[in-house]
Amino acid sequence: MLAQQGIIPRDDADAIIVGLSAVQDEIERGDFPWDPALEDLHMNIERRLTDLIGPAGARLHTGRSRNDQIALDMRLYTRAAIDDTIAGLRSVQRALVDLAGQYQEVLMPGYTHLQRAQPVLFAHHMLAYFEMLQRDVGRFTDCAVRMDVLPLGSGALAGVPYPTDRIAVALALEFAEISPNSMDAVADRDFLAEFHAAAAIAMMHISRLSEEIVIWSSREFDFVRLPDEFTTGSSIMPQKRNPDFAEIARGKTGRVYGSLMGILTVLKGLPLTYNRDLQEDKEGFFDTVDTLLSTLSVFADMLPGMKLNTHRVESLASESYMLATDLADYLVGKGVPFRDAHGVMRRLCQHCEADGMSLSDLPIAEYQRFAPQFDDDVYAITAAASVAARDNPGGTAPNRVAEGLARAKSILTSTETQ
Amino acid sequence: MLAQQGIIPRDDADAIIVGLSAVQDEIERGDFPWDPALEDLHMNIERRLTDLIGPAGARLHTGRSRNDQIALDMRLYTRAAIDDTIAGLRSVQRALVDLAGQYQEVLMPGYTHLQRAQPVLFAHHMLAYFEMLQRDVGRFTDCAVRMDVLPLGSGALAGVPYPTDRIAVALALEFAEISPNSMDAVADRDFLAEFHAAAAIAMMHISRLSEEIVIWSSREFDFVRLPDEFTTGSSIMPQKRNPDFAEIARGKTGRVYGSLMGILTVLKGLPLTYNRDLQEDKEGFFDTVDTLLSTLSVFADMLPGMKLNTHRVESLASESYMLATDLADYLVGKGVPFRDAHGVMRRLCQHCEADGMSLSDLPIAEYQRFAPQFDDDVYAITAAASVAARDNPGGTAPNRVAEGLARAKSILTSTETQ
Amino acid sequence: MLAQQGIIPRDDADAIIVGLSAVQDEIERGDFPWDPALEDLHMNIERRLTDLIGPAGARLHTGRSRNDQIALDMRLYTRAAIDDTIAGLRSVQRALVDLAGQYQEVLMPGYTHLQRAQPVLFAHHMLAYFEMLQRDVGRFTDCAVRMDVLPLGSGALAGVPYPTDRIAVALALEFAEISPNSMDAVADRDFLAEFHAAAAIAMMHISRLSEEIVIWSSREFDFVRLPDEFTTGSSIMPQKRNPDFAEIARGKTGRVYGSLMGILTVLKGLPLTYNRDLQEDKEGFFDTVDTLLSTLSVFADMLPGMKLNTHRVESLASESYMLATDLADYLVGKGVPFRDAHGVMRRLCQHCEADGMSLSDLPIAEYQRFAPQFDDDVYAITAAASVAARDNPGGTAPNRVAEGLARAKSILTSTETQ
Amino acid sequence: MLAQQGIIPRDDADAIIVGLSAVQDEIERGDFPWDPALEDLHMNIERRLTDLIGPAGARLHTGRSRNDQIALDMRLYTRAAIDDTIAGLRSVQRALVDLAGQYQEVLMPGYTHLQRAQPVLFAHHMLAYFEMLQRDVGRFTDCAVRMDVLPLGSGALAGVPYPTDRIAVALALEFAEISPNSMDAVADRDFLAEFHAAAAIAMMHISRLSEEIVIWSSREFDFVRLPDEFTTGSSIMPQKRNPDFAEIARGKTGRVYGSLMGILTVLKGLPLTYNRDLQEDKEGFFDTVDTLLSTLSVFADMLPGMKLNTHRVESLASESYMLATDLADYLVGKGVPFRDAHGVMRRLCQHCEADGMSLSDLPIAEYQRFAPQFDDDVYAITAAASVAARDNPGGTAPNRVAEGLARAKSILTSTETQ
Repeated sequence: MLAQQGIIPRDDADAIIVGLSAVQDEIERGDFPWDPALEDLHMNIERRLTDLIGPAGARLHTGRSRNDQIALDMRLYTRAAIDDTIAGLRSVQRALVDLAGQYQEVLMPGYTHLQRAQPVLFAHHMLAYFEMLQRDVGRFTDCAVRMDVLPLGSGALAGVPYPTDRIAVALALEFAEISPNSMDAVADRDFLAEFHAAAAIAMMHISRLSEEIVIWSSREFDFVRLPDEFTTGSSIMPQKRNPDFAEIARGKTGRVYGSLMGILTVLKGLPLTYNRDLQEDKEGFFDTVDTLLSTLSVFADMLPGMKLNTHRVESLASESYMLATDLADYLVGKGVPFRDAHGVMRRLCQHCEADGMSLSDLPIAEYQRFAPQFDDDVYAITAAASVAARDNPGGTAPNRVAEGLARAKSILTSTETQ
Repeated sequence: MLAQQGIIPRDDADAIIVGLSAVQDEIERGDFPWDPALEDLHMNIERRLTDLIGPAGARLHTGRSRNDQIALDMRLYTRAAIDDTIAGLRSVQRALVDLAGQYQEVLMPGYTHLQRAQPVLFAHHMLAYFEMLQRDVGRFTDCAVRMDVLPLGSGALAGVPYPTDRIAVALALEFAEISPNSMDAVADRDFLAEFHAAAAIAMMHISRLSEEIVIWSSREFDFVRLPDEFTTGSSIMPQKRNPDFAEIARGKTGRVYGSLMGILTVLKGLPLTYNRDLQEDKEGFFDTVDTLLSTLSVFADMLPGMKLNTHRVESLASESYMLATDLADYLVGKGVPFRDAHGVMRRLCQHCEADGMSLSDLPIAEYQRFAPQFDDDVYAITAAASVAARDNPGGTAPNRVAEGLARAKSILTSTETQ
Repeated sequence: MLAQQGIIPRDDADAIIVGLSAVQDEIERGDFPWDPALEDLHMNIERRLTDLIGPAGARLHTGRSRNDQIALDMRLYTRAAIDDTIAGLRSVQRALVDLAGQYQEVLMPGYTHLQRAQPVLFAHHMLAYFEMLQRDVGRFTDCAVRMDVLPLGSGALAGVPYPTDRIAVALALEFAEISPNSMDAVADRDFLAEFHAAAAIAMMHISRLSEEIVIWSSREFDFVRLPDEFTTGSSIMPQKRNPDFAEIARGKTGRVYGSLMGILTVLKGLPLTYNRDLQEDKEGFFDTVDTLLSTLSVFADMLPGMKLNTHRVESLASESYMLATDLADYLVGKGVPFRDAHGVMRRLCQHCEADGMSLSDLPIAEYQRFAPQFDDDVYAITAAASVAARDNPGGTAPNRVAEGLARAKSILTSTETQ
Repeated sequence: MLAQQGIIPRDDADAIIVGLSAVQDEIERGDFPWDPALEDLHMNIERRLTDLIGPAGARLHTGRSRNDQIALDMRLYTRAAIDDTIAGLRSVQRALVDLAGQYQEVLMPGYTHLQRAQPVLFAHHMLAYFEMLQRDVGRFTDCAVRMDVLPLGSGALAGVPYPTDRIAVALALEFAEISPNSMDAVADRDFLAEFHAAAAIAMMHISRLSEEIVIWSSREFDFVRLPDEFTTGSSIMPQKRNPDFAEIARGKTGRVYGSLMGILTVLKGLPLTYNRDLQEDKEGFFDTVDTLLSTLSVFADMLPGMKLNTHRVESLASESYMLATDLADYLVGKGVPFRDAHGVMRRLCQHCEADGMSLSDLPIAEYQRFAPQFDDDVYAITAAASVAARDNPGGTAPNRVAEGLARAKSILTSTETQ
């Protein structure tokens, strides 16, 4: 571009291109003679270039500043990190969809307050995480769009006094736009803070799933069995299947939260434009990217091997008290106002509990003592019927979950073909 | 909708609507008989409704749960908060644009490391903040789009066993979509975390501007004078114009960062679906909304009255050393490779500094001792010329800043007409 | 003191004292005529004082500044908050000690990774929390000692030009020392950051206990039953005992973490001395104090009513695999090197698990196939024996736990008599 | 100890000691054959030991668990880190004391709100930072005392079934106490959170000093000149002396805050005892230790070379408006109530400012128009007199600052001789 615009001679530009290519080869071969005395990467490359091609190398830096270069470098890195993150999120979504498909009709207890509340399909539970990660994809995508701006050409802070063609550079580097204000361009690290925030929310989602896996892996719950390679045992207690990877992922949430707080603290109260504090934008960011990608990769590998203890979860799903809400709804269907139906069920459940009885074992006459609207069809209210009744968009009825699964698959398919 | 779908009788629905309207009147008049024993708002309203309209009131809660209701309430609140925030950001942008317009051609020193680096236009500096807030608008808009989803109809966690028409409700409440998974819908508070993150970044921007205002208001800088009503003085030192509002805004960044950390901590590791921990999503959020809106409002009011000390900033902008980069670029224009030109200027500046001379006072013969390419036109390099030379998109040249200002105005205009 | 030192006339001092007493009465009676136009509390009081006692009131502010006054106010408030916090921690410790005493010999499974690992005494588990809170007491005590410094007399920043007797004031206000540097004294908010940090760690402890209570309250664990007044149920599912207070406490950890981050962010990079940002030290702090005190109060009230399901926890404590470590230790006692004993047990446990057998049901001949050192006394290794064997200081053997309990009681007793 | 207590044979113990010594040599020489398949450090050492000394090596792990070992390792590391940190804080304190001594009588403007408020001694300003770091030393010391507890002997969680002598081990490893509860001992990471909090506060102090150095290094303030090796310049603008190290230190505050948030997040809501999340306690901690130590080291090296521009700061210290408070105090000394004196000065200063006059140029007759108590001695009120008048403990009067300096030196001396 510098030659194209007549800023430097074409011959020098050609020599620079050939020279940089040689430098790249040296770096890739591990032969590059790094000199720490030269302060940074940029100066090392320029010096080596000048060694290789002579004075033309001294024209490399024309129309550039380290301030706009580092702003560019961070954007290039972040752009790649977002692509990788979205691919990682997609692979975990795929694993969730596969699990949902594998156990599509299995009932399990649904929880609020870690107390059994209503029966749901296991597939419905898995798809809840699909939705969370779907929003994560959205956040990273938005971040990518917002940061798709070339800062090069901003100089140290004020722009450059050469007739550079910034749009050509943007096209060459595949940026959608050029930055409209040079001072902002060199001082801005919003995209890092935004990436960190999106990463923190994504890790929070993973921490929720991790917590469930840890709880489900306990002997007391005994809902799932993780693949051997994703547990460690006390080496002598064979029944101990420590869900280490879920625990580590849950723990790693802390470091990602911490790095978000770190970058926000760095940026707080910085006057324009570049301040050396900004150098502290890197390590925490690289760490967050590595942490997020490796966590997503572990989950994409671990989830497919997670076995659901279908017998156990289905039997717990049938606990009769979880049907109390359905029985209230049954009464509503017979014309009882909701709040009254609710009162009937409260008294009826207390009665059963006092006698140590299950609702399903109660004779119809007993039912009718609490509300005359009860009839024999009350015994048709089972966990399966409860689930089937929640036949509204987004509900846990099998056909609705099948819809959700189809939707999820279609999102993944349309993504793959892109 | 409940009547429309045949879930409750039309008469009851009509009575409920009339009754709720009466309840609303009572609340607005301050006549509503709140009863703390009834646990929450929802139960208070239902009880009062039943008092007013009789048994039909007991049908109010049909097909709803407090879990999906609170998810809805928070979304309605957040939606309004985003609208208000964007309006607040726009009003600060407007103030920045006005300041930029008012002092459109005034030169000032541009800083890196809080050291004078190159002359820039004050308007260019103001527009850098316009760009930051423009990205903030983007983040809040994205958040609004992503959260534009109706959770109602998710029940406690599993969906509802009534043939509700969720799409009709979404239309009535002006949501673009309905939630695709009931378990996710009641457990999700992503939109709050995302709002908090966007608010933290916006406050970070305000903290940067605040820091500059504090520094510029010092006697040593003496760049700006804040309107009297936005400073406090020591009551006896009349020259003391404490930039309290800028300081407070800078300080308030802390509480917004803190609330972001708070909601992320609350959500970390929560198993599905609703857990009472989620109750802690409110106070920090309300505080963040209030803090952000009041801060934006103060800045929108304060900035228009900020007077720039144009004489002072223009005279500092002319310090000759700030032109060293331009002189290097001058040599590049005469065919000297950039790195060599850079070396010439380093030696030349050291020479001047040692002698306590300004670059602009140096005789041409002296210049030529350092590089023969120097000629009389070197004296044409002034702060104004330096600024004018940065005539690239995004640069600080007056015509480029005029472009930036036009762009900013056009963004604001198109917003107003929406 | 001002009169004592001859700084103001004795008569005026007497009038001020009488007047302030009248002002205090007015405030307590709710009769005080607050005037928002007077900016703050201090000015309101001074104005009212002057109304009441005439010109002498105008001498009130002699030798003081709002900067050292607010520094004093915050220390007085924090000092009281620390006293209250320590009292709150003590009351929770007392509840833990009572629980430990009540179930002193009850065995339960001890967990690592939320997997059953080795049997322990429930009392031992409770005393682990006693130790955590004991360290919390230490942290708050250290904070109190470090902040026990009178800032008054520092003036706005430079000290005061009156012969005030700071030590007399310190004695009167019960401070151990006077601040040695006036600039530090008005700029310092370390004590708030330190309090916040101690509060964050204390809430973290409570969040760990809360998590356990939530898990133990699940039907799957079914270890404890919370008192009715500390659970809420779904109003119709009588078996649902939502551990709301534990969940809320766990959630409130977030806001305390957030406020810690808030104050640290406020203080970051503030130049000396007073800056208005410091005004932001208050709300987050008051909120943290209220949150911490109310949480401790709830736990002190809730824990005594928590019923342990002793039958359930004791039966789980007897699961034979949890004794694998003890069996390895048994072999070590018979001269087998630890690592080899460990290998024997791994193979033996795998064998049992493959056959679906419990270790305790295995015939001695089978044992001896894995290691000839096994003998009939192997059957003496039970959960109770395992626990009894950990008879080292800090171990879970009943006599060691009794020691721990005695130690805890003695700490509490010595505290009460202070 | 294991042999002493008869837990393992003396011969085996001797062999283990010899073997471990050989292992240590191998590690130090870089010859140790690390095998990643052996999971961790502990297993690698045990395996190598067994290779070297035969079966006795398999007795190494007797009475230990990785859970109590890692708890020990972290305490040993933290103990050393605290020693290093305190040494680092002392060296910065020494540099501050030296600076204070070097410029002991130099007047400078004291600031509130970054506005000149009252003249102070530069030494007084430096000693304010001495006091901050003194509290930091106190916090780290308290942390060291609180964590001076041996966890070894806690086993995996329940204690160990061997007659180990924990007190002998504590003595050998120089711990003051043994942990009183094994479950707490393996689950506790309080000391890391407390270290992080103390580090965050210490970095906050450094960030305040950094901010001042950045501001003072600006051309507009021009108060100090950093040594060349601690600034970088734009390579061609010789006057540009970027205070990079102060900026980087200010920025690094972010990562330390972030790691504090990280460890608190990791620990939140973890059930007892060990969970693999705790593995995440390390990297952030090591980073915080490295960051803090290197920052303190840089400041200890940089501060001694910082030159104060005494001419500049003294001339600004004489700005007459900064004496307004002193003039009010002068009137108080003549019997005018403080609030009235304050009102006089407000009007008088406004009058001068309107006329563009300095207070020191005002004729006595003019003074007397505002208050008859003014007399010729009013002209004796100078910056030096103002400073001298603040002759109270902690004030900025030269003799008080000399006291502060003596106090500081005595603290440092008593530390050195320890």
